[in-house]
Amino acid sequence: MKLASYIDHTLLKADTSEAEIEQLCNEAKEHNFVAVCVPPYFVRKCKQWLKDSDVKIATVVGFPLGYAHTPAKVEEARRAIDEGANEIDMVINIIALKANDLNYLKNELTSAATIVQLRGGKLKVILETGLLTQEEMLRACKLCTELSVDYVKTSTGFIEKGATVEDVKFLRANLPKSIKIKASGGIKTKEDAEALIKAGADRIGTSRGVALVK
Amino acid sequence: MKLASYIDHTLLKADTSEAEIEQLCNEAKEHNFVAVCVPPYFVRKCKQWLKDSDVKIATVVGFPLGYAHTPAKVEEARRAIDEGANEIDMVINIIALKANDLNYLKNELTSAATIVQLRGGKLKVILETGLLTQEEMLRACKLCTELSVDYVKTSTGFIEKGATVEDVKFLRANLPKSIKIKASGGIKTKEDAEALIKAGADRIGTSRGVALVK
Repeated sequence: MKLASYIDHTLLKADTSEAEIEQLCNEAKEHNFVAVCVPPYFVRKCKQWLKDSDVKIATVVGFPLGYAHTPAKVEEARRAIDEGANEIDMVINIIALKANDLNYLKNELTSAATIVQLRGGKLKVILETGLLTQEEMLRACKLCTELSVDYVKTSTGFIEKGATVEDVKFLRANLPKSIKIKASGGIKTKEDAEALIKAGADRIGTSRGVALVK
Repeated sequence: MKLASYIDHTLLKADTSEAEIEQLCNEAKEHNFVAVCVPPYFVRKCKQWLKDSDVKIATVVGFPLGYAHTPAKVEEARRAIDEGANEIDMVINIIALKANDLNYLKNELTSAATIVQLRGGKLKVILETGLLTQEEMLRACKLCTELSVDYVKTSTGFIEKGATVEDVKFLRANLPKSIKIKASGGIKTKEDAEALIKAGADRIGTSRGVALVK
Protein backbone atom coordinates (compact mmCIF):
# COMPACT_ATOMS: atom_id res chain seq x y z
CA MET A 1 0.00 0.00 0.00
CA LYS A 2 1.31 3.43 -0.95
CA LEU A 3 0.12 5.55 1.95
CA ALA A 4 0.64 8.93 0.22
CA SER A 5 -1.99 8.07 -2.38
CA TYR A 6 -4.61 7.97 0.38
CA ILE A 7 -3.84 11.26 2.08
CA ASP A 8 -5.86 14.48 2.12
CA HIS A 9 -3.24 16.85 3.54
CA THR A 10 -5.33 19.01 5.85
CA LEU A 11 -5.19 22.38 7.63
CA LEU A 12 -8.48 23.87 8.79
CA LYS A 13 -7.76 26.07 11.81
CA ALA A 14 -9.69 29.34 12.11
CA ASP A 15 -6.41 31.28 12.09
CA THR A 16 -4.53 29.49 9.33
CA SER A 17 -2.06 31.72 7.49
CA GLU A 18 -1.32 31.96 3.78
CA ALA A 19 2.27 30.85 4.43
CA GLU A 20 1.04 27.69 6.16
CA ILE A 21 -1.24 26.86 3.23
CA GLU A 22 1.51 27.47 0.69
CA GLN A 23 3.72 25.07 2.64
CA LEU A 24 0.87 22.55 2.77
CA CYS A 25 0.58 22.71 -1.02
CA ASN A 26 4.33 22.30 -1.47
CA GLU A 27 4.38 19.27 0.83
CA ALA A 28 1.42 17.76 -1.01
CA LYS A 29 3.26 18.08 -4.32
CA GLU A 30 6.52 16.75 -2.90
CA HIS A 31 4.91 13.66 -1.36
CA ASN A 32 2.25 13.08 -4.06
CA PHE A 33 -0.69 13.33 -1.68
CA VAL A 34 -4.14 13.01 -3.27
CA ALA A 35 -5.41 16.37 -2.13
CA VAL A 36 -5.04 19.33 0.17
CA CYS A 37 -8.01 20.15 2.39
CA VAL A 38 -8.15 23.88 3.19
CA PRO A 39 -10.51 26.68 4.30
CA PRO A 40 -12.69 28.11 1.47
CA TYR A 41 -10.79 31.40 1.73
CA PHE A 42 -7.66 29.72 0.28
CA VAL A 43 -9.14 27.71 -2.60
CA ARG A 44 -8.33 30.30 -5.23
CA LYS A 45 -4.73 30.57 -4.07
CA CYS A 46 -4.29 26.79 -3.93
CA LYS A 47 -5.49 26.66 -7.52
CA GLN A 48 -2.44 28.78 -8.47
CA TRP A 49 0.04 26.98 -6.25
CA LEU A 50 -1.08 23.55 -7.48
CA LYS A 51 -1.55 24.38 -11.14
CA ASP A 52 1.27 22.16 -12.41
CA SER A 53 0.42 19.15 -10.28
CA ASP A 54 -2.17 16.39 -9.89
CA VAL A 55 -2.92 17.34 -6.29
CA LYS A 56 -6.63 18.01 -5.89
CA ILE A 57 -8.20 20.78 -3.82
CA ALA A 58 -10.75 19.88 -1.18
CA THR A 59 -12.52 22.41 1.02
CA VAL A 60 -15.20 22.34 3.69
CA VAL A 61 -18.85 23.41 3.83
CA GLY A 62 -21.09 23.87 6.88
CA PHE A 63 -17.99 23.13 8.88
CA PRO A 64 -17.64 21.89 11.59
CA LEU A 65 -21.11 22.03 13.21
CA GLY A 66 -23.27 21.16 10.18
CA TYR A 67 -26.29 23.21 11.19
CA ALA A 68 -25.98 26.13 8.76
CA HIS A 69 -29.06 26.59 6.58
CA THR A 70 -29.26 24.47 3.43
CA PRO A 71 -29.20 27.46 1.03
CA ALA A 72 -26.07 28.75 2.76
CA LYS A 73 -24.35 25.38 2.49
CA VAL A 74 -25.32 25.03 -1.17
CA GLU A 75 -24.07 28.54 -1.95
CA GLU A 76 -20.82 27.80 -0.13
CA ALA A 77 -20.34 24.60 -2.14
CA ARG A 78 -21.17 26.25 -5.47
CA ARG A 79 -18.77 29.09 -4.81
CA ALA A 80 -15.95 26.77 -3.77
CA ILE A 81 -16.28 24.65 -6.91
CA ASP A 82 -16.42 27.76 -9.09
CA GLU A 83 -13.19 28.99 -7.48
CA GLY A 84 -11.39 25.75 -8.25
CA ALA A 85 -12.20 23.17 -5.56
CA ASN A 86 -12.44 19.58 -6.81
CA GLU A 87 -13.94 18.08 -3.69
CA ILE A 88 -16.37 19.39 -1.07
CA ASP A 89 -16.31 17.98 2.46
CA MET A 90 -19.72 18.98 3.83
CA VAL A 91 -20.94 18.28 7.35
CA ILE A 92 -24.41 16.71 7.41
CA ASN A 93 -27.02 18.48 9.55
CA ILE A 94 -26.42 16.36 12.65
CA ILE A 95 -29.43 17.84 14.43
CA ALA A 96 -31.75 16.88 11.56
CA LEU A 97 -30.18 13.42 11.40
CA LYS A 98 -30.79 12.80 15.08
CA ALA A 99 -34.34 14.20 14.79
CA ASN A 100 -34.98 11.85 11.83
CA ASP A 101 -35.95 14.88 9.70
CA LEU A 102 -35.53 12.97 6.45
CA ASN A 103 -37.16 15.53 4.16
CA TYR A 104 -34.75 18.18 5.36
CA LEU A 105 -31.74 15.92 4.87
CA LYS A 106 -32.84 14.67 1.44
CA ASN A 107 -33.31 18.23 0.25
CA GLU A 108 -29.94 19.30 1.63
CA LEU A 109 -27.97 16.35 0.26
CA THR A 110 -29.69 16.41 -3.14
CA SER A 111 -29.13 20.15 -3.53
CA ALA A 112 -25.49 19.92 -2.53
CA ALA A 113 -24.75 16.81 -4.61
CA THR A 114 -26.39 18.34 -7.68
CA ILE A 115 -24.45 21.60 -7.45
CA VAL A 116 -21.16 19.80 -6.86
CA GLN A 117 -21.45 16.85 -9.23
CA LEU A 118 -22.88 18.83 -12.17
CA ARG A 119 -19.72 20.94 -11.98
CA GLY A 120 -17.55 17.83 -12.02
CA GLY A 121 -16.77 17.83 -8.30
CA LYS A 122 -17.03 15.14 -5.65
CA LEU A 123 -19.20 15.46 -2.55
CA LYS A 124 -17.96 13.99 0.72
CA VAL A 125 -20.57 13.95 3.47
CA ILE A 126 -19.12 14.24 6.97
CA LEU A 127 -21.21 12.37 9.55
CA GLU A 128 -19.29 13.21 12.75
CA THR A 129 -19.59 9.58 13.84
CA GLY A 130 -18.32 10.44 17.32
CA LEU A 131 -21.70 12.05 18.04
CA LEU A 132 -23.86 9.32 16.46
CA THR A 133 -25.41 6.04 17.55
CA GLN A 134 -25.16 3.03 15.21
CA GLU A 135 -28.83 3.54 14.31
CA GLU A 136 -28.10 7.14 13.30
CA MET A 137 -25.05 6.07 11.28
CA LEU A 138 -27.19 3.49 9.49
CA ARG A 139 -29.81 6.13 8.71
CA ALA A 140 -27.09 8.35 7.24
CA CYS A 141 -25.72 5.45 5.16
CA LYS A 142 -29.18 4.82 3.68
CA LEU A 143 -29.61 8.50 2.80
CA CYS A 144 -26.15 8.77 1.26
CA THR A 145 -26.78 5.62 -0.77
CA GLU A 146 -30.15 6.84 -2.00
CA LEU A 147 -28.75 10.25 -2.95
CA SER A 148 -25.52 8.97 -4.55
CA VAL A 149 -22.94 11.05 -2.77
CA ASP A 150 -19.30 10.26 -3.60
CA TYR A 151 -17.80 9.75 -0.16
CA VAL A 152 -18.91 9.32 3.41
CA LYS A 153 -16.40 10.86 5.82
CA THR A 154 -16.25 9.98 9.50
CA SER A 155 -15.30 13.14 11.38
CA THR A 156 -14.49 16.83 11.41
CA GLY A 157 -11.49 16.54 13.71
CA PHE A 158 -13.07 19.28 15.85
CA ILE A 159 -14.51 17.02 18.56
CA GLU A 160 -12.66 14.62 20.82
CA LYS A 161 -13.62 11.38 19.08
CA GLY A 162 -12.33 10.95 15.54
CA ALA A 163 -12.20 8.02 13.12
CA THR A 164 -12.19 4.51 14.60
CA VAL A 165 -11.59 1.16 12.92
CA GLU A 166 -14.94 -0.01 14.25
CA ASP A 167 -16.88 2.90 12.69
CA VAL A 168 -15.10 2.57 9.33
CA LYS A 169 -15.94 -1.15 9.23
CA PHE A 170 -19.55 -0.35 10.08
CA LEU A 171 -19.79 2.25 7.31
CA ARG A 172 -18.11 -0.09 4.79
CA ALA A 173 -20.62 -2.84 5.63
CA ASN A 174 -23.56 -0.49 5.10
CA LEU A 175 -22.58 1.43 1.97
CA PRO A 176 -22.43 0.27 -1.66
CA LYS A 177 -19.00 -0.08 -3.30
CA SER A 178 -19.73 3.03 -5.35
CA ILE A 179 -19.54 5.19 -2.22
CA LYS A 180 -16.04 5.60 -0.84
CA ILE A 181 -15.01 6.25 2.73
CA LYS A 182 -12.78 8.97 4.14
CA ALA A 183 -11.46 8.45 7.66
CA SER A 184 -10.41 11.58 9.52
CA GLY A 185 -9.95 13.00 12.99
CA GLY A 186 -7.21 12.03 15.43
CA ILE A 187 -5.15 9.98 12.94
CA LYS A 188 -1.68 10.37 14.41
CA THR A 189 0.50 7.47 13.27
CA LYS A 190 1.22 5.35 10.23
CA GLU A 191 -0.26 2.39 12.11
CA ASP A 192 -3.53 4.32 12.74
CA ALA A 193 -3.76 5.14 9.03
CA GLU A 194 -2.99 1.61 7.87
CA ALA A 195 -5.54 0.07 10.24
CA LEU A 196 -8.23 2.44 8.94
CA ILE A 197 -7.35 1.63 5.33
CA LYS A 198 -7.51 -2.08 6.13
CA ALA A 199 -10.94 -1.49 7.68
CA GLY A 200 -12.17 0.03 4.41
CA ALA A 201 -11.04 3.66 4.21
CA ASP A 202 -10.25 4.95 0.70
CA ARG A 203 -8.95 8.29 1.92
CA ILE A 204 -7.20 9.50 5.08
CA GLY A 205 -7.71 13.08 6.27
CA THR A 206 -4.88 14.25 8.50
CA SER A 207 -2.73 17.24 9.33
CA ARG A 208 0.18 14.88 9.94
CA GLY A 209 0.58 13.63 6.37
CA VAL A 210 4.32 14.33 6.15
CA ALA A 211 5.10 12.49 9.39
CA LEU A 212 2.92 9.57 8.31
CA VAL A 213 4.81 8.91 5.07
CA LYS A 214 8.28 9.40 6.53
CA MET B 1 -27.72 45.62 38.08
CA LYS B 2 -30.37 43.11 36.95
CA LEU B 3 -28.24 40.31 35.52
CA ALA B 4 -31.07 38.58 33.62
CA SER B 5 -31.48 41.62 31.37
CA TYR B 6 -27.94 41.07 30.05
CA ILE B 7 -28.16 37.40 29.22
CA ASP B 8 -28.27 35.69 25.83
CA HIS B 9 -29.30 32.18 26.90
CA THR B 10 -27.20 30.02 24.61
CA LEU B 11 -27.06 26.46 23.27
CA LEU B 12 -25.03 25.87 20.12
CA LYS B 13 -23.79 22.26 20.19
CA ALA B 14 -23.76 20.33 16.90
CA ASP B 15 -26.11 17.73 18.38
CA THR B 16 -28.59 19.97 20.19
CA SER B 17 -32.07 18.45 20.43
CA GLU B 18 -35.44 20.12 19.94
CA ALA B 19 -36.36 19.29 23.56
CA GLU B 20 -33.25 21.11 24.80
CA ILE B 21 -34.10 24.20 22.75
CA GLU B 22 -37.72 24.19 23.93
CA GLN B 23 -36.44 24.10 27.50
CA LEU B 24 -34.00 26.93 26.73
CA CYS B 25 -36.91 29.04 25.46
CA ASN B 26 -39.00 28.27 28.54
CA GLU B 27 -36.14 29.19 30.85
CA ALA B 28 -35.57 32.43 28.92
CA LYS B 29 -39.21 33.38 29.36
CA GLU B 30 -39.25 32.42 33.04
CA HIS B 31 -36.13 34.42 33.88
CA ASN B 32 -36.71 37.33 31.46
CA PHE B 33 -33.45 36.84 29.60
CA VAL B 34 -32.87 39.22 26.67
CA ALA B 35 -32.51 36.51 24.05
CA VAL B 36 -31.93 32.88 23.24
CA CYS B 37 -28.97 32.09 20.99
CA VAL B 38 -29.60 28.90 18.97
CA PRO B 39 -28.53 27.03 15.81
CA PRO B 40 -30.17 28.32 12.59
CA TYR B 41 -32.10 25.06 12.29
CA PHE B 42 -34.21 26.00 15.34
CA VAL B 43 -35.02 29.66 14.59
CA ARG B 44 -38.42 28.91 13.12
CA LYS B 45 -39.44 26.78 16.09
CA CYS B 46 -38.19 29.37 18.60
CA LYS B 47 -40.38 31.90 16.83
CA GLN B 48 -43.40 29.78 17.81
CA TRP B 49 -42.26 29.00 21.32
CA LEU B 50 -41.44 32.63 22.07
CA LYS B 51 -44.38 34.27 20.31
CA ASP B 52 -46.02 35.62 23.48
CA SER B 53 -42.84 36.96 25.03
CA ASP B 54 -40.27 39.72 24.66
CA VAL B 55 -37.37 37.26 24.43
CA LYS B 56 -35.44 37.86 21.23
CA ILE B 57 -34.01 35.18 18.93
CA ALA B 58 -30.31 35.26 18.10
CA THR B 59 -28.60 32.76 15.81
CA VAL B 60 -25.12 32.28 14.41
CA VAL B 61 -23.55 32.69 10.98
CA GLY B 62 -20.20 31.41 9.71
CA PHE B 63 -19.89 29.75 13.07
CA PRO B 64 -17.51 29.01 14.73
CA LEU B 65 -14.54 29.23 12.32
CA GLY B 66 -15.53 32.34 10.35
CA TYR B 67 -13.94 31.32 7.06
CA ALA B 68 -17.04 30.42 5.06
CA HIS B 69 -17.36 32.40 1.83
CA THR B 70 -18.98 35.82 2.09
CA PRO B 71 -21.97 34.94 -0.17
CA ALA B 72 -22.64 31.87 2.00
CA LYS B 73 -22.53 33.93 5.20
CA VAL B 74 -24.79 36.59 3.73
CA GLU B 75 -27.27 33.98 2.52
CA GLU B 76 -27.23 32.35 5.95
CA ALA B 77 -27.91 35.70 7.65
CA ARG B 78 -30.69 36.63 5.23
CA ARG B 79 -32.40 33.30 5.68
CA ALA B 80 -32.18 33.44 9.47
CA ILE B 81 -33.72 36.90 9.63
CA ASP B 82 -36.49 35.86 7.23
CA GLU B 83 -37.29 32.88 9.46
CA GLY B 84 -37.62 35.10 12.52
CA ALA B 85 -34.20 35.80 14.02
CA ASN B 86 -33.79 39.27 15.53
CA GLU B 87 -30.05 39.14 15.98
CA ILE B 88 -27.21 37.58 13.97
CA ASP B 89 -23.97 36.61 15.70
CA MET B 90 -21.53 36.29 12.78
CA VAL B 91 -17.90 35.28 13.10
CA ILE B 92 -15.54 37.64 11.28
CA ASN B 93 -13.18 36.04 8.76
CA ILE B 94 -10.28 35.65 11.20
CA ILE B 95 -7.89 34.62 8.43
CA ALA B 96 -8.63 37.77 6.43
CA LEU B 97 -8.33 39.89 9.58
CA LYS B 98 -4.90 38.48 10.37
CA ALA B 99 -3.85 38.86 6.71
CA ASN B 100 -5.01 42.52 6.79
CA ASP B 101 -7.28 41.79 3.80
CA LEU B 102 -9.37 44.91 4.39
CA ASN B 103 -11.27 44.88 1.10
CA TYR B 104 -12.47 41.36 1.80
CA LEU B 105 -13.56 42.25 5.32
CA LYS B 106 -15.26 45.49 4.30
CA ASN B 107 -17.23 43.69 1.63
CA GLU B 108 -18.23 40.93 4.02
CA LEU B 109 -19.25 43.19 6.89
CA THR B 110 -21.07 45.68 4.65
CA SER B 111 -23.00 42.91 2.89
CA ALA B 112 -23.97 41.22 6.14
CA ALA B 113 -24.88 44.46 7.96
CA THR B 114 -27.00 45.62 5.04
CA ILE B 115 -28.96 42.38 4.78
CA VAL B 116 -29.52 42.20 8.53
CA GLN B 117 -30.18 45.86 9.36
CA LEU B 118 -32.48 46.54 6.40
CA ARG B 119 -34.67 43.75 7.75
CA GLY B 120 -34.71 45.31 11.21
CA GLY B 121 -32.16 42.93 12.73
CA LYS B 122 -28.99 43.55 14.71
CA LEU B 123 -25.56 42.34 13.60
CA LYS B 124 -23.10 41.14 16.21
CA VAL B 125 -19.60 40.56 14.88
CA ILE B 126 -17.67 37.86 16.73
CA LEU B 127 -13.93 38.53 16.77
CA GLU B 128 -12.67 35.42 18.61
CA THR B 129 -10.38 37.61 20.69
CA GLY B 130 -8.59 34.55 22.07
CA LEU B 131 -6.89 34.16 18.68
CA LEU B 132 -6.06 37.85 18.13
CA THR B 133 -3.27 40.22 19.03
CA GLN B 134 -4.16 43.69 20.34
CA GLU B 135 -3.22 45.11 16.96
CA GLU B 136 -5.66 42.75 15.22
CA MET B 137 -8.39 43.62 17.73
CA LEU B 138 -7.80 47.29 17.07
CA ARG B 139 -8.03 46.70 13.31
CA ALA B 140 -11.36 44.91 13.84
CA CYS B 141 -12.66 47.76 16.03
CA LYS B 142 -11.85 50.29 13.31
CA LEU B 143 -13.64 48.21 10.65
CA CYS B 144 -16.69 47.64 12.84
CA THR B 145 -16.86 51.35 13.62
CA GLU B 146 -16.56 52.35 9.98
CA LEU B 147 -19.22 49.84 8.92
CA SER B 148 -21.65 50.54 11.78
CA VAL B 149 -22.30 47.06 13.08
CA ASP B 150 -24.50 46.84 16.19
CA TYR B 151 -22.34 44.75 18.52
CA VAL B 152 -18.82 43.43 18.77
CA LYS B 153 -18.75 40.03 20.47
CA THR B 154 -15.63 38.58 22.01
CA SER B 155 -15.74 34.82 21.45
CA THR B 156 -17.45 31.76 20.02
CA GLY B 157 -17.05 29.61 23.12
CA PHE B 158 -15.54 26.93 20.85
CA ILE B 159 -11.88 27.59 21.67
CA GLU B 160 -10.18 27.45 25.03
CA LYS B 161 -9.91 31.18 25.69
CA GLY B 162 -13.19 33.04 26.05
CA ALA B 163 -14.10 36.54 27.23
CA THR B 164 -11.70 38.32 29.57
CA VAL B 165 -12.13 41.54 31.52
CA GLU B 166 -8.99 42.84 29.86
CA ASP B 167 -10.28 42.25 26.31
CA VAL B 168 -13.69 43.77 27.08
CA LYS B 169 -12.02 46.89 28.49
CA PHE B 170 -9.82 47.11 25.40
CA LEU B 171 -12.81 46.82 23.05
CA ARG B 172 -14.80 49.38 25.07
CA ALA B 173 -11.90 51.84 24.86
CA ASN B 174 -11.68 51.45 21.09
CA LEU B 175 -15.31 51.43 19.98
CA PRO B 176 -17.82 54.30 19.88
CA LYS B 177 -20.73 54.26 22.35
CA SER B 178 -23.09 53.34 19.51
CA ILE B 179 -21.49 49.91 19.21
CA LYS B 180 -22.30 47.60 22.08
CA ILE B 181 -20.24 44.72 23.42
CA LYS B 182 -21.22 41.12 23.98
CA ALA B 183 -18.94 39.06 26.20
CA SER B 184 -19.12 35.30 25.73
CA GLY B 185 -17.13 32.11 26.15
CA GLY B 186 -16.27 30.48 29.45
CA ILE B 187 -18.51 32.68 31.62
CA LYS B 188 -19.23 30.32 34.48
CA THR B 189 -20.19 32.34 37.56
CA LYS B 190 -22.20 35.37 38.57
CA GLU B 191 -18.91 37.04 39.54
CA ASP B 192 -17.48 36.42 36.04
CA ALA B 193 -20.55 38.00 34.48
CA GLU B 194 -20.61 41.00 36.79
CA ALA B 195 -16.91 41.70 36.24
CA LEU B 196 -17.42 41.65 32.45
CA ILE B 197 -20.40 43.98 32.71
CA LYS B 198 -18.37 46.34 34.88
CA ALA B 199 -15.63 46.24 32.21
CA GLY B 200 -18.13 47.39 29.59
CA ALA B 201 -20.14 44.42 28.38
CA ASP B 202 -23.77 45.14 27.41
CA ARG B 203 -24.66 41.52 26.83
CA ILE B 204 -23.48 38.21 28.31
CA GLY B 205 -23.59 35.05 26.18
CA THR B 206 -23.65 31.91 28.31
CA SER B 207 -25.15 28.45 28.51
CA ARG B 208 -25.28 28.84 32.29
CA GLY B 209 -27.87 31.63 32.45
CA VAL B 210 -30.15 29.90 34.93
CA ALA B 211 -27.35 29.15 37.39
CA LEU B 212 -26.06 32.72 37.06
CA VAL B 213 -29.32 34.36 38.12
CA LYS B 214 -30.11 31.93 40.95
